[in-house]
Amino acid sequence: MISLSDTGNDLSPEDLSFLGGEAKKASAVLRKADTLTRDKALTAAAEALLEDSGEILEANRIDVEAANASGQSGTVIDRLRLDATRVRKMSDAIRDVVGLPDPLGQVVSGWVRPNGLKVRRVRVPLGVIGIVYENRPNVTSDAAALCLKSGNAVMLRGSAGAINSNIAIEKSLRSGLKEAGLPLSAVTLIKDIKRETVTDFVRLDKFIDCLIPRGGPGLVKLIKEEASVPYVIDGDGNCHVYVDKICDLGMAVNIVVNAKTSRPGVCNAMETLLLHKDIAGEFLEAADALLGGVELRGDAASRVLLPRIKEAVEADYEKEFLDLTMAVKVVEDIDEAIGHVNKYSTGHSEAIVTDDYQAATRFTEEVDAAAVLVNASTRFIDGGELGLGAEIGISTQKLHARGPMGVTELTSVKFVVEGTGQVRK
Amino acid sequence: MISLSDTGNDLSPEDLSFLGGEAKKASAVLRKADTLTRDKALTAAAEALLEDSGEILEANRIDVEAANASGQSGTVIDRLRLDATRVRKMSDAIRDVVGLPDPLGQVVSGWVRPNGLKVRRVRVPLGVIGIVYENRPNVTSDAAALCLKSGNAVMLRGSAGAINSNIAIEKSLRSGLKEAGLPLSAVTLIKDIKRETVTDFVRLDKFIDCLIPRGGPGLVKLIKEEASVPYVIDGDGNCHVYVDKICDLGMAVNIVVNAKTSRPGVCNAMETLLLHKDIAGEFLEAADALLGGVELRGDAASRVLLPRIKEAVEADYEKEFLDLTMAVKVVEDIDEAIGHVNKYSTGHSEAIVTDDYQAATRFTEEVDAAAVLVNASTRFIDGGELGLGAEIGISTQKLHARGPMGVTELTSVKFVVEGTGQVRK
Repeated sequence: MISLSDTGNDLSPEDLSFLGGEAKKASAVLRKADTLTRDKALTAAAEALLEDSGEILEANRIDVEAANASGQSGTVIDRLRLDATRVRKMSDAIRDVVGLPDPLGQVVSGWVRPNGLKVRRVRVPLGVIGIVYENRPNVTSDAAALCLKSGNAVMLRGSAGAINSNIAIEKSLRSGLKEAGLPLSAVTLIKDIKRETVTDFVRLDKFIDCLIPRGGPGLVKLIKEEASVPYVIDGDGNCHVYVDKICDLGMAVNIVVNAKTSRPGVCNAMETLLLHKDIAGEFLEAADALLGGVELRGDAASRVLLPRIKEAVEADYEKEFLDLTMAVKVVEDIDEAIGHVNKYSTGHSEAIVTDDYQAATRFTEEVDAAAVLVNASTRFIDGGELGLGAEIGISTQKLHARGPMGVTELTSVKFVVEGTGQVRK
Repeated sequence: MISLSDTGNDLSPEDLSFLGGEAKKASAVLRKADTLTRDKALTAAAEALLEDSGEILEANRIDVEAANASGQSGTVIDRLRLDATRVRKMSDAIRDVVGLPDPLGQVVSGWVRPNGLKVRRVRVPLGVIGIVYENRPNVTSDAAALCLKSGNAVMLRGSAGAINSNIAIEKSLRSGLKEAGLPLSAVTLIKDIKRETVTDFVRLDKFIDCLIPRGGPGLVKLIKEEASVPYVIDGDGNCHVYVDKICDLGMAVNIVVNAKTSRPGVCNAMETLLLHKDIAGEFLEAADALLGGVELRGDAASRVLLPRIKEAVEADYEKEFLDLTMAVKVVEDIDEAIGHVNKYSTGHSEAIVTDDYQAATRFTEEVDAAAVLVNASTRFIDGGELGLGAEIGISTQKLHARGPMGVTELTSVKFVVEGTGQVRK
């Protein structure tokens, strides 16, 4: 058995169960802790991050050097790298979470039965949340803050590439817990960076109540195949914008340019443009220059209209490019558009640009996705932009949570039934 | 590839995928079908069950004969056996589902963002629901009715022992779909009764949106290990009643007798009695005769008070007896009671009998279960008894649904965002 201070670089399944058991015990304390105590821990953690920033940046420097030495891409290193400003932003993000309303104790509904039984459904923490994520150190503090705010303990399994940064950040978070008199195991970083440990981690269903994997298709596949813990998938976004026959073409161009180019590497960026055949030529002419930096891959009909479009293959419609590449397709009508979206969509965010009332209604009702938009950029599907506060991910599954997940989605509901001695006939 | 009329007693994974694809297509039609159409299909199915009852009873007779021949227990055969009254009850249960409010289209919440974006969250069907269940033929019609009412297609994988009954019932249900002009694949029974087919079935995540396993620990284990489809576990109920120091002992005896003996084979029946040491003797004296038919297994303290109590082993506290056996334990105080419940509970229904306000509050807040009760029998934790209408199961997990699941729990929520050309800064 390991001790809690152990860096635990070689954890057996039994060691993981021990850590899980400690997190479970911590969750029982958190369930009873009031809002002020949990907020105190978070505020103290936000301060500790600033005070410890020297140590955090030094630990991060080691991770960045290792990433450079192993030839990681610029994007990966940029996600990993911290500086004083980024640490301050992490601290501010925790303070923002403190400012969110506490979801716990909310009476979701309540009624009295004919026999006098009083029934109410009350919002309670899930218990222990497990997060598996890529090498972005800010996720360590963001995720922990959202879990603590909602009364949950959290077990974090970050990637090997950010291990030194994560250890330093966990230390600051735990000093916040200590200051509020909460158990340190309420935030537990798994420090064993072996790949196989992820498989053991996602099987801790005795201790972890909900798993939130944040990562690419490889991680999602592993979770679907191996996890015994219930999970909510933060999945890919193969997002479409369909420009309908009757619409404001200027608005359509603006929305498409924004959805594709404002931040192509994120999940709510658009990947495929669908154009009604009657406006396809005019749209492409108007958008061409503004999409100058974007590589276009389209079907035969679109390539006739704009020769710089390269020939698309089936895989281009299935892909989340996450860069300045976009698939294009000219469709006969809204039926073909909806059919295409429902075939290729990953169920994230799907938009139509139209002035046709019936088309807007049909698109929003018939497209099967977490979010559907009319005359707005897909980039708005985000917890902050929609007004939910910070988010722990965007669910592309339908159970439990769908779309951006905030503190409410980190809770469950319990039936409380009060009687005066009723028994069942 | 098989045809839909095929009994399909030997389905390859490809055949299952074909059936999944057909169910998925049917779910797209159901998503658009209005309440009247779905209710028409259900009403016609309820009528068809009565009209076809001769055929259904004949098919059931074959299943019951096979069960008798293979030496199944009386309980199993009673669950399997249909008669004219039971078929009528199945038909009536469908009519009851017709009478439930339609959850679809409900606007769960809605607001306007500072930039003018109108956001609303709308209740929508999950899509395709997969049910894996034991040999109770009434589950076939009950589950299908709840799924159709909530706009979902359903794939049913009943047990081998009820296959003939299920085929006959599916036929009646489909005649209802036909009458309403809905696709027959909206109700699809998997007719391949091989055990391995269950494993293939729970991996149809391309087609099935939610899996609801209804069965014992073996099935739950298989689902946890093999399923790639998200699931909601309808789990065991190791339910406790804790009789506190300050309470109405007559009420406590009534509740314990009801919770244990009114129907011992169901999941909301009690399995373990916890007695505060100060009232344990008096309680056991008062309850002894009324619990005459119940075998008691207890700790040393309880056996001193009532010699007929047999010695309990650890396993007795872990077990869902599902018969007239009950574990007993004398506890020092409410802390020990809550600790015991949280250690052994399966998270189903837990009750306290008390007149102490603080004890009631602590028990309801600190016990981690789908339902907690004060001064009422655990037997009330049931969709019908709580006023939710018919239930498809009782969830003992915390994600998506917890406690009795009705039609609302068979839905998801979609974000609909309407703009006037907004793009993200």
